[in-house]
Amino acid sequence: MLTLDKVYHASFVLNEVIRKTDLIPAPKINPDCDVYLKTENLQITGSFKVRGAYYKISQLSDEEKSKGVIACSAGNHAQGVALAAAKNGIKSLICLPDGAPISKVEATKSYGAEVCLVDGVYDDAYNKAMELKDEKGYTFVHPFDDENVIAGQGTIGLEILDQLKNVDAVIVPVGGGGLISGVAFAIKQLRPEVKVYGVQASGAPSMVQSLKSDKIECLDSVATIADGIKVKEPGVNTFEYCKKYVDDIVTVTDDEISSAILSLIEHQKLISEGAGAVSVAAAMFNKVPIKGKKVVCLVSGGNIDVTILSRVIKRGLLKSGRSDSINIELIDKPGQLRDVSKIIADLGGNVIAIHHERANENSDINGCYLRILLETRNYEHIQMIRKALEDSGFTIVD
Amino acid sequence: MLTLDKVYHASFVLNEVIRKTDLIPAPKINPDCDVYLKTENLQITGSFKVRGAYYKISQLSDEEKSKGVIACSAGNHAQGVALAAAKNGIKSLICLPDGAPISKVEATKSYGAEVCLVDGVYDDAYNKAMELKDEKGYTFVHPFDDENVIAGQGTIGLEILDQLKNVDAVIVPVGGGGLISGVAFAIKQLRPEVKVYGVQASGAPSMVQSLKSDKIECLDSVATIADGIKVKEPGVNTFEYCKKYVDDIVTVTDDEISSAILSLIEHQKLISEGAGAVSVAAAMFNKVPIKGKKVVCLVSGGNIDVTILSRVIKRGLLKSGRSDSINIELIDKPGQLRDVSKIIADLGGNVIAIHHERANENSDINGCYLRILLETRNYEHIQMIRKALEDSGFTIVD
Repeated sequence: MLTLDKVYHASFVLNEVIRKTDLIPAPKINPDCDVYLKTENLQITGSFKVRGAYYKISQLSDEEKSKGVIACSAGNHAQGVALAAAKNGIKSLICLPDGAPISKVEATKSYGAEVCLVDGVYDDAYNKAMELKDEKGYTFVHPFDDENVIAGQGTIGLEILDQLKNVDAVIVPVGGGGLISGVAFAIKQLRPEVKVYGVQASGAPSMVQSLKSDKIECLDSVATIADGIKVKEPGVNTFEYCKKYVDDIVTVTDDEISSAILSLIEHQKLISEGAGAVSVAAAMFNKVPIKGKKVVCLVSGGNIDVTILSRVIKRGLLKSGRSDSINIELIDKPGQLRDVSKIIADLGGNVIAIHHERANENSDINGCYLRILLETRNYEHIQMIRKALEDSGFTIVD
Repeated sequence: MLTLDKVYHASFVLNEVIRKTDLIPAPKINPDCDVYLKTENLQITGSFKVRGAYYKISQLSDEEKSKGVIACSAGNHAQGVALAAAKNGIKSLICLPDGAPISKVEATKSYGAEVCLVDGVYDDAYNKAMELKDEKGYTFVHPFDDENVIAGQGTIGLEILDQLKNVDAVIVPVGGGGLISGVAFAIKQLRPEVKVYGVQASGAPSMVQSLKSDKIECLDSVATIADGIKVKEPGVNTFEYCKKYVDDIVTVTDDEISSAILSLIEHQKLISEGAGAVSVAAAMFNKVPIKGKKVVCLVSGGNIDVTILSRVIKRGLLKSGRSDSINIELIDKPGQLRDVSKIIADLGGNVIAIHHERANENSDINGCYLRILLETRNYEHIQMIRKALEDSGFTIVD
């Protein structure tokens, strides 16, 4: 049974281990309200998950501790459990599907866990974890549907109330629902007038669907760049807490999430993972009624793969007119590349890649294509360059 | 004349305006010492510059205030002055060369400054600023060589001593020398045993050269990705403060800076600009004697252009062995691509791009080249994959 006492106790226990992450004003996220970021991406392990995992593990009996813990995750929960176990001086085993990204496996090991790679997908790893748990007597640390885990996450709610006395609303990412259950519970006990909103990815709206039909729904498939909240089914406990304490849960698209990630980079100098940025996306795109309010967006984590980050940035630059890809059909005669280059250079475009291809199947036998990737200032700049090329007789294909 | 009193006064004046930025442990920067980051990249305007600019402007007489201030900068100083002037309720004019990046111009305007675009380069903008200053009676806010500006930056030194009682060393980026002058002055007054090290980019070592020859040197040319510290000549005052209070100033290369930026992204979820990351680069690459010490790296700012960031990430992944580009010469017969793919997949490499080209002029008429871009774990992993390909009879060209 979750109580406010338990959340306070978790806060006391966590005090020596975790960081009380900073609350940072973010004036450019939404001009119509005062936005603050609770920066759990700057938490140790790069996510809030260590809070719940640590508190859960700290409350095990000596006998349970001596046997160790097991978890199944390829993400933040794995790292949280690994570090929490190490700090409690006990053994942890993390089961992962063998296709898990190398970086995640290495990170989990680096926090001191033993990793068990299981043939297949997440469900196979989960089954293996259950098998090992029964066989060896490990304690399974659930990623969200556990009272102690929820109490640990709830400590963030206490910190927010302490850091922003007159907060009006808190926006929280929702996957399985552990984080928002703890945060909403703590906040509503102390300041019931503060609104607590949840956000899911539109490609994984399991809690939204479940609340709508008033029973736990299991989605057939989930797809989103916010892999930290790509959860098919809410927990039994978390579903009840969301029903009782959460004011509303909304969804954001992958494009909105990408924009939020880019905005956090440009305006706040913060790296967020997709799941961590959904709260910011909801504030940016006015998904919840926050006009004129003091709003805290909980940025739950920052563990985004750098190659994915690189893609998000590229997409963001294209979307905002700061880069363009121009495909030009050339007559295959000398001097064409020089002429194109000159036009672009004269207008201040910066060429970053060129792909020049002869005898493409779709082109005239003497023709060829020139694909140019260039850095531009904005949409007007792009139009200026494209027009100058066309005015000089070049055909732009796309 | 700089006094500790003045730095304390600056701290008092700045209290309501700036953020006391967080000090964050960064355990993965260097395993041989305890590294902490003073996160001035999370300061309002994305850099420490607002501290000096605000304190300078706050100390102007009413008459000076009524006329307004002028500055010449395309970067953080411009934004600092703009915001500081706006918060003091006075007018600011920023002279910029007309080739300045649009994003910087827009950012400066967004903080409330009037922008004067001047034909030519930085020197032309500077001359224009001087002309306008004389003509209109504006006060010129120097980016570094000014006692009040230096006092403002020195407040960071006070905060560091407060945030990490037993600090052993502080590492500070050096351009014109305003930041390190203030920080070193404050720290040495209070805790003379704490070491203060400076870091310059190896492509712009103006203070290093000047200290070496014991007179102010003006470099002919400067080149570095750390544009915030790309300064040809130190200030008269800052040169003296560095001589007196700084223990040593070292340099780092652009490659080392890129690695530091990437490491801050991956391990700390923080965006740093080149200038902001030189302190971290110095700690990562053991440029200063910090083994076993408690070290604060001052991350001075985070205003990096997103396109440059995107390049830094790509380069950083290549440099740290997390991606590789392999060019293989194939005999043009079926199944070669499959065989190569299998070898890479079996060893856990992740292919992210393939370029397959027949009838390259350098190859046999039946030959072709396969260029594969792949994600890897580290250098050993790359060597393992390359060796396996060669052991299977493939010729790797580069």
